[in-house]
Amino acid sequence: MPRGTIETPVFMPVGTQGSVKAMKPDDLERVGAKIILANTYHLHLRPGDSIISQMGGLHKFMAWDGPILTDSGGYQAFSLAKLANITDEGLRFASHLDGARHMLTPESAVGIQENLNSDIMMCLDECVAYPSPRDYVEIAAKRTSLWARRCLEARRNTNALFGIVQGGVYPDLRKKSALEIAAMPFDGIAIGGLSVGEGHAMMMDTLDATLPYVSQDRPRYLMGVGTPVDIIEAVARGIDMFDCVLPTRNARNGMLFTSRGKVSLKQARYKEDSRSPDENCSCYTCRNFSLSYLRHLFISKEILGSILNTLHNLHFYLELMSDIRHSIEGHYFEEYRKQLKENYND
Amino acid sequence: MPRGTIETPVFMPVGTQGSVKAMKPDDLERVGAKIILANTYHLHLRPGDSIISQMGGLHKFMAWDGPILTDSGGYQAFSLAKLANITDEGLRFASHLDGARHMLTPESAVGIQENLNSDIMMCLDECVAYPSPRDYVEIAAKRTSLWARRCLEARRNTNALFGIVQGGVYPDLRKKSALEIAAMPFDGIAIGGLSVGEGHAMMMDTLDATLPYVSQDRPRYLMGVGTPVDIIEAVARGIDMFDCVLPTRNARNGMLFTSRGKVSLKQARYKEDSRSPDENCSCYTCRNFSLSYLRHLFISKEILGSILNTLHNLHFYLELMSDIRHSIEGHYFEEYRKQLKENYND
Repeated sequence: MPRGTIETPVFMPVGTQGSVKAMKPDDLERVGAKIILANTYHLHLRPGDSIISQMGGLHKFMAWDGPILTDSGGYQAFSLAKLANITDEGLRFASHLDGARHMLTPESAVGIQENLNSDIMMCLDECVAYPSPRDYVEIAAKRTSLWARRCLEARRNTNALFGIVQGGVYPDLRKKSALEIAAMPFDGIAIGGLSVGEGHAMMMDTLDATLPYVSQDRPRYLMGVGTPVDIIEAVARGIDMFDCVLPTRNARNGMLFTSRGKVSLKQARYKEDSRSPDENCSCYTCRNFSLSYLRHLFISKEILGSILNTLHNLHFYLELMSDIRHSIEGHYFEEYRKQLKENYND
Repeated sequence: MPRGTIETPVFMPVGTQGSVKAMKPDDLERVGAKIILANTYHLHLRPGDSIISQMGGLHKFMAWDGPILTDSGGYQAFSLAKLANITDEGLRFASHLDGARHMLTPESAVGIQENLNSDIMMCLDECVAYPSPRDYVEIAAKRTSLWARRCLEARRNTNALFGIVQGGVYPDLRKKSALEIAAMPFDGIAIGGLSVGEGHAMMMDTLDATLPYVSQDRPRYLMGVGTPVDIIEAVARGIDMFDCVLPTRNARNGMLFTSRGKVSLKQARYKEDSRSPDENCSCYTCRNFSLSYLRHLFISKEILGSILNTLHNLHFYLELMSDIRHSIEGHYFEEYRKQLKENYND
């Protein structure tokens, strides 16, 4: 990317409202983040993409110099807002903040992302709930292809634009969507509509039904995924890019990812535990603090708890990706995959 | 101090529950903190000073290598807990966390602080509300002197112990208390019972009535104070040490201290303001972010807002102290004092 080289497979920390929760930009650099994700829906509603544009774009606004990927806003319009209706024209919804009516079209989704000056823009797509009837999933996938063409036409700048494959958990619909989207001149192909309740096995089955029809000459991005096991299994199937709120959200809920598996600071067993959360971890949190202290911060609702837990969990995820890359280069990916699944078998 | 030289006058950021809210230890170092304060009451109740002792003391627990001053716990037993009674023996109170009954005596206050291994311990004192009848203030000051002697006798380690002057806003009671406390072999003398609602003018009058009777051979500490104007006026009267939650608490409420006066991020005027909060400030926040972004974070309730605002406000307070020290050394203190009061005239 013009703003920096990204080694894949890569994990992108989520900065929903123009901030990766509890992280300063220098903290993000320190944990090894190379690219982050921001949410078009949230930033469009508040503070507004026109204000961000006026402030010099999202990079300057949030003081993050690396690449930024933005979603299209569609998913949040489905999941957070009060959705009024969906037509081929676009999505009508009422803001979850103040109930104000908004319209998101393929053209406006690209326009907003251009205002943000995101390095990788995503097409507006129609993400369906799980489970959904086949007929509806088919209509949504068809509309996603229609919108994908309109997004390509709407683009005015030279930043990257990714298309999104839909099709729910129906192999033939996934194949059709993949062929249609991959045939268009996108800079990358995303797999959308997963991690919406279908479970790990069905997620992997759907990837198996989709990826053979997505050419390997462009990055492949699995949106909103996932657990360490989801990630390594998706990498095994050829996915290059991931984003997920798990490491950051779980951190704020007192859950740490460690090389021994998950650790919940809610457990009384850590009250007098002088060990660091993960003896194999070199992050700031593990170098300086005990489980006892982190549990105290969590129980006491101290902001520092969210900070230190987030630092650790993001470091864990970014080290995981680094370890995966090394295991591929060193030809021991299968061993690494097996071991990770033993530590994270739940 | 064995753990580091402290130039005075000094401001001590408040780390109530073993964490200066929203600050990592390296952030504290970065803003120039040399000594911090922690609250005995909070740490005694949670996680418990015996656990902190077991974890290697408070410095190791919170990964802060510099000196730590702890209060005696008395003030919070008055202000936060449900106070059962006060006798010469000590304070009986019910925890604000779970209602459990506790007893704080001069001896246990010192014992708890020794468990924490604080570098500067404070005597248990009886802080009275403002206003309080003269008779009661007299009894409380007398008891404070009694407890002061018992604290000195109870001390087992070689860490510093400060006595506390009480006496409300009654000049003769302050004089009596000051003479009694200053006659004892304390390592420093604190002025307690101020900043409890008496207002700036009466606070200064009380200092004027007290400080002539406190010898100048030991550091003098004005507890829980204050605004920039409180501080510079107290320095003018000979105070060396301060602590206050204002910079940290106000930060979380969206209020910034700047060289131009106070800035409230609640104000809509900052929505599209691309300037940094303080053009004369070299802190991380001012070097990287605009008022527009900080307002967005505040309105969006992002943790990063608390972090960046706290970084800035603590930097402001610690720079203020540094500027005061330079103005004294450079013989322009009176000019500096006048200018500061113009910027903070409210």
